[in-house]
Amino acid sequence: MKSMTAQLNPIFKPESIAVIGASNKAMKWGFRMLDFPLRTGYRGAIYPVNPNEERVQNLPAYKSILDVTGPVDLAVITVPAKQVAVVMKECIEKGVKGAIVISAGFAELGPEGKALEEEVVAIAREGGIRFVGPNCMGIWSAASTLSLAFETAPRPGPVAFVSQSGTFGGVLSEIACTKGYGLSKFISIGNQGDLCAADYLEYLAEDDDTKVILFYIEGFKEDTRFFDIAKDIVKKKPIVVYKAGRSMPGIKAMQSHTASISGSDEIFDAVCRQVGVIRTRETLHSFDVAEALAHQPLPRGKRVAILGSGGQGVVTADACSALGLEVPELDADTVRSLQESMPSYAPIPRNPVDFAGSPRTSMEEAAVVETLLSRDYIDGVISNAPFNAAAMSAMLGIIGMPKHLVDVTKLAIQGAEYLASLPEIYKKPLITIRFHRYEHDIILDILRGAGIPVYDTPEECARAMHALVQYAEAKQKYE
Amino acid sequence: MKSMTAQLNPIFKPESIAVIGASNKAMKWGFRMLDFPLRTGYRGAIYPVNPNEERVQNLPAYKSILDVTGPVDLAVITVPAKQVAVVMKECIEKGVKGAIVISAGFAELGPEGKALEEEVVAIAREGGIRFVGPNCMGIWSAASTLSLAFETAPRPGPVAFVSQSGTFGGVLSEIACTKGYGLSKFISIGNQGDLCAADYLEYLAEDDDTKVILFYIEGFKEDTRFFDIAKDIVKKKPIVVYKAGRSMPGIKAMQSHTASISGSDEIFDAVCRQVGVIRTRETLHSFDVAEALAHQPLPRGKRVAILGSGGQGVVTADACSALGLEVPELDADTVRSLQESMPSYAPIPRNPVDFAGSPRTSMEEAAVVETLLSRDYIDGVISNAPFNAAAMSAMLGIIGMPKHLVDVTKLAIQGAEYLASLPEIYKKPLITIRFHRYEHDIILDILRGAGIPVYDTPEECARAMHALVQYAEAKQKYE
Repeated sequence: MKSMTAQLNPIFKPESIAVIGASNKAMKWGFRMLDFPLRTGYRGAIYPVNPNEERVQNLPAYKSILDVTGPVDLAVITVPAKQVAVVMKECIEKGVKGAIVISAGFAELGPEGKALEEEVVAIAREGGIRFVGPNCMGIWSAASTLSLAFETAPRPGPVAFVSQSGTFGGVLSEIACTKGYGLSKFISIGNQGDLCAADYLEYLAEDDDTKVILFYIEGFKEDTRFFDIAKDIVKKKPIVVYKAGRSMPGIKAMQSHTASISGSDEIFDAVCRQVGVIRTRETLHSFDVAEALAHQPLPRGKRVAILGSGGQGVVTADACSALGLEVPELDADTVRSLQESMPSYAPIPRNPVDFAGSPRTSMEEAAVVETLLSRDYIDGVISNAPFNAAAMSAMLGIIGMPKHLVDVTKLAIQGAEYLASLPEIYKKPLITIRFHRYEHDIILDILRGAGIPVYDTPEECARAMHALVQYAEAKQKYE
Repeated sequence: MKSMTAQLNPIFKPESIAVIGASNKAMKWGFRMLDFPLRTGYRGAIYPVNPNEERVQNLPAYKSILDVTGPVDLAVITVPAKQVAVVMKECIEKGVKGAIVISAGFAELGPEGKALEEEVVAIAREGGIRFVGPNCMGIWSAASTLSLAFETAPRPGPVAFVSQSGTFGGVLSEIACTKGYGLSKFISIGNQGDLCAADYLEYLAEDDDTKVILFYIEGFKEDTRFFDIAKDIVKKKPIVVYKAGRSMPGIKAMQSHTASISGSDEIFDAVCRQVGVIRTRETLHSFDVAEALAHQPLPRGKRVAILGSGGQGVVTADACSALGLEVPELDADTVRSLQESMPSYAPIPRNPVDFAGSPRTSMEEAAVVETLLSRDYIDGVISNAPFNAAAMSAMLGIIGMPKHLVDVTKLAIQGAEYLASLPEIYKKPLITIRFHRYEHDIILDILRGAGIPVYDTPEECARAMHALVQYAEAKQKYE
């Protein structure tokens, strides 16, 4: 049997795709499935298939997939459910290597649809084609700049997002992208007729573009297999799961949505903990924590030092404590070292360290972060992102930035570069929080470019650090 | 004694302000305190006071407040701490009616600073001037379009935000404004040398621009008085508190930040529940729930109906249940009624109601919401915002919107207007969630214009509904 990579690469890295049911009508799925890859820069060959049109979206249309002259790696099927079996047979005859069945009208409708779905699965298995769906919204694959799910290609990034809910998963992805995160893959898995969550997990474990695997899941089809596979993968890649259907009303809604069956939430929780799968409690949190998991070194323990100003430091300490992280007091030696890099009029450093409004440069702040990271009893640091004087001066509306502000900006850039170098030196995670909502931020680019997450709130910082601690503990268990 | 309104109106609705310590140097507080009101459209008289400059920011400068010829309602004091007492005396001599002391270097620095602060307080009390601060970042007051705290005036709105942390409070306000929320007031309360949280509470209770009062607080100065006052105010306005310093590390950080003393978090929680103050667990949540509290009718109970698609409905049901809200099953009569307004091929309606991808119009969705709101056993509804076909067609990049999409947009607008009318008719809250991140959205404007909150996530919807239920329960207790 071929490896999962060999089986699914034609779906996620196709050199050619055929859209079967391609349409000129804007509200049709067959329109989007051709329009989206055309607009988002897919560079392989695209063949629209439609027996009733000469041209679709300005491309010559083929009556049948069998009429396409070149080879076809991936078939995207949007025809009505009842025609999918025939189309699947033609795909096999054509030698198509993988498929995505967008069409709805299968198991989600009841026994009759289920029989139809099983027929299609049997045909595909027989013919050696693996397929995504049915009843799904398509995929995004950064490797091929192939978007079937989004009109605008998401920012490429290290996170693969596998979603049992197409629309909602798409919305979450959009929000994640507006927060600056990037995706290696998005997979709307639909009914999991053929390929199921466990298969995607297996595939993504070997996918070099993917450093963190996220799931929005209502119910697993092969949950034992999922967790069996997960056990091995967790050793090398973090898996983050948001599990819906946690309450009775949620479970009932889920049953009519994806016909998923769910065990008790407590059991699911226990299994995740045992295997080392990180569970998030709010849908969007998955993307936040993934950002840290993708880039930051793992902490050796759960002792966090904080550099924050005023209320932000207080709230960060609270949020860390609420998640079971420790915020240890600083020893005399650390206090002495910190005082060397802090202005004399700053208050005596504690944890959180607070300059309390004392004027300082970003270099001085970064020196504090380094001192904290260098201590044996500190496992990771949450810090302010350097102050961007350029953005601040733009905010202040200062035309022609005064000389001393240019200097401050230069220092902030130096501070950001200094911070950016620290996680690798100390093999400890560094997470930052930014103040001010400025659009373009050179500081943000330097930090994110170096893999240092920049969050908006203390709570996001604490959750990210907690996820790193959870993952570190899971890995340690396997060593 | 004058009412709190009479005492504080000169601060929040001044007809003239003097900035004492006004500066031409961009990084000085005395620069911002003149620059911000000038840039944000404050229409009263502004007098810069600086003994060493002829002009400050192109305005003639006065050597002393005593040299200002016209009357001065509000003095904004930015001079070094040691000079504040003298300045305060001059303000009294001048007949200034209120002050904001931006200057730091008081109680937050220890006993010596505390003595200085007490001296200033004694002088102000003696002279009949109330003041904000010291050690604060200023205010925003929509009533006078007066911003001392923000370079860009926040959107005016029904929420007053009182923050013990200046910088962090400002950041939270900025994030809230980018989410589309508006503020009637922002008050950075600093050390609470004179005016304290309880005073602002008393003032805002009578402020017609303020419908919801939010606090970010580390420690109350007069907590018994605060809760005594709160007890009366809760009968007419909701009070939302985010309390920092909930953990030992948080409490320690807080003590060095604002020298606040905090009782146990459990006791604080119990007092809030008893008095009917709504407590939020994450800083930004305060603004989300305030949006619903400001505009929506209160539910009579905690039974929620949901109209949502797929995973979003499941997650909404989960999130409601986790907060103790009920998601009741629909009775046969409701199911029959719903089926009349739903397409025949849609699945049998449950709660959450899910069209499951069946084509429908926004008017059909709104009819479902009305049916749900009309039921005795449903106390409030969480629904999809109407689908904006215009935005969708823009997303799809369709140039020259086809006729049928124009119709769909018209239906969506009708649907939004239909939804907008429902809370008042049924005296029940309606909360919506939007899909797609389009910038400008006529649907969004219609709904928000009618006071219907539009959130990004199911969790935000559930928290808002929960806050409404909490506030309704608190009010019922007092009836």
